[in-house]
Amino acid sequence: MPAYKELKREAYEANCELPERGLVLYTFGNASAADRKRGVIAIKPSGVDYADLTWKDMVVLDISGNVIEGKHRPSSDMKTHLVLYRAFADIGGIVHTHSTYATAWAQAMRSIPCFGTTHADHLPGEVPCTAMISDAQIKKDYEEETGNQIVAAFKKKDPNETPMVLVAGHGPFTWGATAMKAAYNSVILEELAKMASITCTVDPRAGSIKRTLIEKHFNRKHGRNAYYGQGE
Amino acid sequence: MPAYKELKREAYEANCELPERGLVLYTFGNASAADRKRGVIAIKPSGVDYADLTWKDMVVLDISGNVIEGKHRPSSDMKTHLVLYRAFADIGGIVHTHSTYATAWAQAMRSIPCFGTTHADHLPGEVPCTAMISDAQIKKDYEEETGNQIVAAFKKKDPNETPMVLVAGHGPFTWGATAMKAAYNSVILEELAKMASITCTVDPRAGSIKRTLIEKHFNRKHGRNAYYGQGE
Amino acid sequence: MPAYKELKREAYEANCELPERGLVLYTFGNASAADRKRGVIAIKPSGVDYADLTWKDMVVLDISGNVIEGKHRPSSDMKTHLVLYRAFADIGGIVHTHSTYATAWAQAMRSIPCFGTTHADHLPGEVPCTAMISDAQIKKDYEEETGNQIVAAFKKKDPNETPMVLVAGHGPFTWGATAMKAAYNSVILEELAKMASITCTVDPRAGSIKRTLIEKHFNRKHGRNAYYGQGE
Amino acid sequence: MPAYKELKREAYEANCELPERGLVLYTFGNASAADRKRGVIAIKPSGVDYADLTWKDMVVLDISGNVIEGKHRPSSDMKTHLVLYRAFADIGGIVHTHSTYATAWAQAMRSIPCFGTTHADHLPGEVPCTAMISDAQIKKDYEEETGNQIVAAFKKKDPNETPMVLVAGHGPFTWGATAMKAAYNSVILEELAKMASITCTVDPRAGSIKRTLIEKHFNRKHGRNAYYGQGE
Repeated sequence: MPAYKELKREAYEANCELPERGLVLYTFGNASAADRKRGVIAIKPSGVDYADLTWKDMVVLDISGNVIEGKHRPSSDMKTHLVLYRAFADIGGIVHTHSTYATAWAQAMRSIPCFGTTHADHLPGEVPCTAMISDAQIKKDYEEETGNQIVAAFKKKDPNETPMVLVAGHGPFTWGATAMKAAYNSVILEELAKMASITCTVDPRAGSIKRTLIEKHFNRKHGRNAYYGQGE
Repeated sequence: MPAYKELKREAYEANCELPERGLVLYTFGNASAADRKRGVIAIKPSGVDYADLTWKDMVVLDISGNVIEGKHRPSSDMKTHLVLYRAFADIGGIVHTHSTYATAWAQAMRSIPCFGTTHADHLPGEVPCTAMISDAQIKKDYEEETGNQIVAAFKKKDPNETPMVLVAGHGPFTWGATAMKAAYNSVILEELAKMASITCTVDPRAGSIKRTLIEKHFNRKHGRNAYYGQGE
Repeated sequence: MPAYKELKREAYEANCELPERGLVLYTFGNASAADRKRGVIAIKPSGVDYADLTWKDMVVLDISGNVIEGKHRPSSDMKTHLVLYRAFADIGGIVHTHSTYATAWAQAMRSIPCFGTTHADHLPGEVPCTAMISDAQIKKDYEEETGNQIVAAFKKKDPNETPMVLVAGHGPFTWGATAMKAAYNSVILEELAKMASITCTVDPRAGSIKRTLIEKHFNRKHGRNAYYGQGE
Repeated sequence: MPAYKELKREAYEANCELPERGLVLYTFGNASAADRKRGVIAIKPSGVDYADLTWKDMVVLDISGNVIEGKHRPSSDMKTHLVLYRAFADIGGIVHTHSTYATAWAQAMRSIPCFGTTHADHLPGEVPCTAMISDAQIKKDYEEETGNQIVAAFKKKDPNETPMVLVAGHGPFTWGATAMKAAYNSVILEELAKMASITCTVDPRAGSIKRTLIEKHFNRKHGRNAYYGQGE
């Protein structure tokens, strides 16, 4: 039995969720899962079609990016994932897609305002859009610097509360306690981005709902006294 | 045989209609059915995935919100449903969703004008958008106050004629003689909201059709001398 | 064997095409087929769900609207169909839908400009939008007057070349040599309306292509020297 | 065994990809494959429904347009394909569709700006839109002149780097090393066009990302030191 079977399966299943939910075309996108205790992550191989993927194709890396197990080259976005795992101590999974509506907002380089309670049910404010990457960063180590861009956008934001970001001119990254939770957040982000773009059509001057309403909704699901769900 | 089998089945089937018609993601949304004679309602449990739902999971409550039957916690929107059942004497079912287009209009805080006869076939004027909830209401009993917001929007409107509303910054609620009719109205509202947003794209200054045309269409389907359908 | 089996089957199959192509919700829409020699048409019954429909449910009427065969009430739009069959001598089928994009243009009360060759492949100019129906017409015989509105829009237009129209504030009607050709034209109209609304998003001031290009495309498919297709 | 079985199968499979990916309605669109050594191409017959198509229906032509094999008339766009095969020496497949979003941009007569890295992953700049065809060209040999229009738009552009174009007022053409690669590029173009139209909704003044970012993304996939994929 392979040493990282469970971890590879977790990463594989999160990757499978992406085409099933209509978030990726061809080989776009990638999901990874982390095993914090062993200090390793499993990630999708680069440029492989989802239809051909099996859990055995996942590549296992240590937190510095050395391949521990796997015969494929890891996703070219691997270094972005590693920066996020190092900076955000509590996350166990990361997903990157080019899903249509979230990418359109990233292309417009606009944070998505918290237009309503569907949004506030999931995060307590806008989906932040990073600054545009500098030419110096592009020349340096592009994928690692993409990670640094994201981390910079979270200087005053809690990544556990806001598990998603738009990289300016690029597309979304989401994360969560597990790889499947990160995939869930990608689905949610795409829906929020779609609703928000229609809101802009209906009223181009629409703005965020007020803080009291945001907090009410966020806290009834995620706060200390949350009362949504079965309390499991 | 459980005492409320029929009622729970009715609520269950209306809940199932929502993902089937593409109106909900994951656990979003909820449907309830009322048995007016026995003074009880059956409603979806909170935060349970539609895929895992069976009719036995429906929670039965009396009209004050006391659990009569069911091992799950009821939907967190339960109090909103109860306010509506108390205020609107003729309705037998209620549905709440975060369907994409209707929610986008709620986020833009715009009533949907009666742009055409597809709309007038179902209700004789705009789909009203409530006022924004006040901070005092948010602090008090949020879900109950959401119900009160809706009731306030119907002071001069007949809820039997206009079986749908947009809660400002939140999303749609619909109702009807039965839970399935309420679900039907959610599907119709989503389609009206989609058509209306495209109408805004094609002509940002588009307005309501005239009252004579609205009344003609509404009455040929719902008036005393209705002549649409098989007269059953 | 019923006397009008063939005709009823033709009407039935055109009606079935509508939900299959995503053009109708629930009971919206209707298709009819005409047998010019016998002076009769077959049309969908009023308010019956497509899922429950069989070819035997089609209602057969003479050209004045008297029921010849069928146990159901005919579509409430029947008189509109009859006006069109009387005014447009060459057509053998008519379809009415509330398809999303075409209806949105009708609601905006805008004719669809001939924005490109996909459009010109099917008709040699705009999809006309009728005038708004007058209050006098609404009071008179609404469905018959809807037909008259359409006929008025074709005073200077050949209905054989332009087999589609938008009724202002209402929705589309299409027609053709057969009921299936009319259904085909409804599918085409919906696609043209969708493309046109996106064209408006990309450039709100976009206009029609030039006449020489329209004629080139229309005539290579429909003109005397058409060279598209297998020449069957 | 027919002489051109392989080539006809390649063209057939690329044609099948188009309805499967939602890029064509009815008989819209066509794909061709070239065998450069034998100096022949295989192309879809004109006006045949995709559902009825078999690989045996593909028409084989020499590079001047003479039918070598096949009982059908070739696609009416055949001459456009031939002009492109003659002008772009390295391409082995061509696809023409009227896919919704790409056609909407062609109708707006706007090149699609490189709004983001999804776009830059595939081509190093805008998707060019040709000039409007002149009346003289329409009268001459329309389909051949459509090819010439496209070639003119590539005077200062490498068709191997930018394997797609919008013909003004008409729709997209894409190409590639093989017919399947050309079909892939049609799918990509449709997605880029959709994202771009939503970007315009979210910010009507959005512009291209900077050249350094475009080049980084294009080159990591297509440059001499590409490091995306498995290096096969």
